Amino acid sequence: MIDQKKIDCVIGIDVGGTNTKIGLVDRAGNIIVNASIETQGEKPFSEFQYRLTTHIQGLLTDNQDTYSFLAVGMGVPDGNFLDGCMHNPPNFSWKNVPIGESFSNSLDLPVVITNDANAAASGEAHFGKGKELDHFVEITLGTGLGSGIYIDGSVLLGSSGHAGEMGHIIVEPEGRKCECGLSGCLEMYVSNKGIMATLDECLKKYPTSELHQYPVDQLSGEEIDLAYDNGDHAAIDCYHLTGELLGKGLATVVSLLSPEAFIFYGGFSNAGSRILSSAEESMNRHVMDVFKQTVLLKESQLKEGSGAILGSAALAWEIVDGKLTIDY
Amino acid sequence: MIDQKKIDCVIGIDVGGTNTKIGLVDRAGNIIVNASIETQGEKPFSEFQYRLTTHIQGLLTDNQDTYSFLAVGMGVPDGNFLDGCMHNPPNFSWKNVPIGESFSNSLDLPVVITNDANAAASGEAHFGKGKELDHFVEITLGTGLGSGIYIDGSVLLGSSGHAGEMGHIIVEPEGRKCECGLSGCLEMYVSNKGIMATLDECLKKYPTSELHQYPVDQLSGEEIDLAYDNGDHAAIDCYHLTGELLGKGLATVVSLLSPEAFIFYGGFSNAGSRILSSAEESMNRHVMDVFKQTVLLKESQLKEGSGAILGSAALAWEIVDGKLTIDY
Repeated sequence: MIDQKKIDCVIGIDVGGTNTKIGLVDRAGNIIVNASIETQGEKPFSEFQYRLTTHIQGLLTDNQDTYSFLAVGMGVPDGNFLDGCMHNPPNFSWKNVPIGESFSNSLDLPVVITNDANAAASGEAHFGKGKELDHFVEITLGTGLGSGIYIDGSVLLGSSGHAGEMGHIIVEPEGRKCECGLSGCLEMYVSNKGIMATLDECLKKYPTSELHQYPVDQLSGEEIDLAYDNGDHAAIDCYHLTGELLGKGLATVVSLLSPEAFIFYGGFSNAGSRILSSAEESMNRHVMDVFKQTVLLKESQLKEGSGAILGSAALAWEIVDGKLTIDY
Repeated sequence: MIDQKKIDCVIGIDVGGTNTKIGLVDRAGNIIVNASIETQGEKPFSEFQYRLTTHIQGLLTDNQDTYSFLAVGMGVPDGNFLDGCMHNPPNFSWKNVPIGESFSNSLDLPVVITNDANAAASGEAHFGKGKELDHFVEITLGTGLGSGIYIDGSVLLGSSGHAGEMGHIIVEPEGRKCECGLSGCLEMYVSNKGIMATLDECLKKYPTSELHQYPVDQLSGEEIDLAYDNGDHAAIDCYHLTGELLGKGLATVVSLLSPEAFIFYGGFSNAGSRILSSAEESMNRHVMDVFKQTVLLKESQLKEGSGAILGSAALAWEIVDGKLTIDY
């Protein structure tokens, strides 16, 4: 029974390769309590389940006088909303784990599962720049490129639950080899690792670049941004090529989906217009007239690192409100 | 008032570049009466409106003892469901015509507007192979390549109403110049005109091809199919190249939308597995493992030429049943 004097709250969880972050989130999207444990994906899943359950139960006990906890949302790598499972996540020893059902049992609360990219889209839709949009695509930048497609007010799952793999549309036929087995995937160019590979190529063309003073694998985004602002040709070429290919990928999505906006979250999205202005120009050059200048490119203002927690929490609120139903 | 003894019926209209076809369609998708007038898009829209209205009123009078006519669906080039307008259709002297509102006034019935490709998708969903599918993409082949995207049981319109322009995703960077202004669009390879251009190239490689006996621009699909079946290298290369590029386009859509199936309607879809088996192999080669072998390629069984009428009629039925609302 819900105690009416307490404040309703959900639990948003972001299971990452290294750490698992936990947030107690109110209806307005405030993260009231933050916590984190090591994921240790190389150990058995049951071990993770035990540690996370124990940690969450501790948080709930500590906060039980003030808050009522109604549901749990979990953003997990290769997580599938439809069946509540993780499917062979890379860098984990876990295979097809029914993570939704497992935590629903151990926490005795409804648990909804999503993947990181879709979680960020849900967070954006409920608490960020997607609030007033019906059709947008959230692009989550990090080591790779994730995307969550929001159509008519909900995340597109597709028949398999895996829709929204924009990072793996092919923008350079016969291009760089991707870990997924394909060649020329967008994320091989438009992601942290993609930019570093491009920068490495650009630095070979410009032996006097100021960026030669650092080893490429130790360069930060801020250092490249600064070099770009100083007119460094290697940095400029690198960001322009990144923007050009990003724009091609965006154009494909625009032709198919006609969204109102793309929202960029994390990673090099801090480079902002340095990359996004080239991307916007390229996007408009690669679409039919009817789509030109119809799509906005926005930078997310969700706090770095909180997108998946807020998005998972947003889905948990949808469960609480009866807008979503799950059967795992 | 609806006379209960009469059979409920809607009017499906397919406005083409040359002819405008009219069908009186019952709830099961039977076309009870077929008619056609010349479109004459070079003349003013008001002239077309007068002729089509007069013709339809004649049909309604002829059938008024048996049928009650409840709504009208119109599939029109560059038609937009959201505003009921045609937007600068090529080969028409009409510019931004509020065709929905115009015919709603002249026929005194609700009129819903869609474009040809979305109409075919609606027809497939209601009366064809899409009946049991929640997520599919209808690919309409003809001079060009149109597509209608069906997601969670309804056509995807996007924020502009123009979503689903799969014919204009770029599959060959720096490839053939398209009328839309872009280069390398899918429809420059996968459409009647695309196949003819590819065949022309293949015939140059194979001077002994049996297809040299005809001028390329007079070859029918059946003649190319026959040459393919006879092992003619020009025909085989042409269809394989077409399938390869079609597969690349399908792969992009699968990565983004994860549909259950693609359904092919019209044009060279009669070539069937001659093209579609290459396309399926190419599609599976250009997607991540999680999508391989998850998507079916089907040939529509809607009668050639009836897809847009049935689809427009399907939308009209949705208006009648209150599943769709329009405000034009």
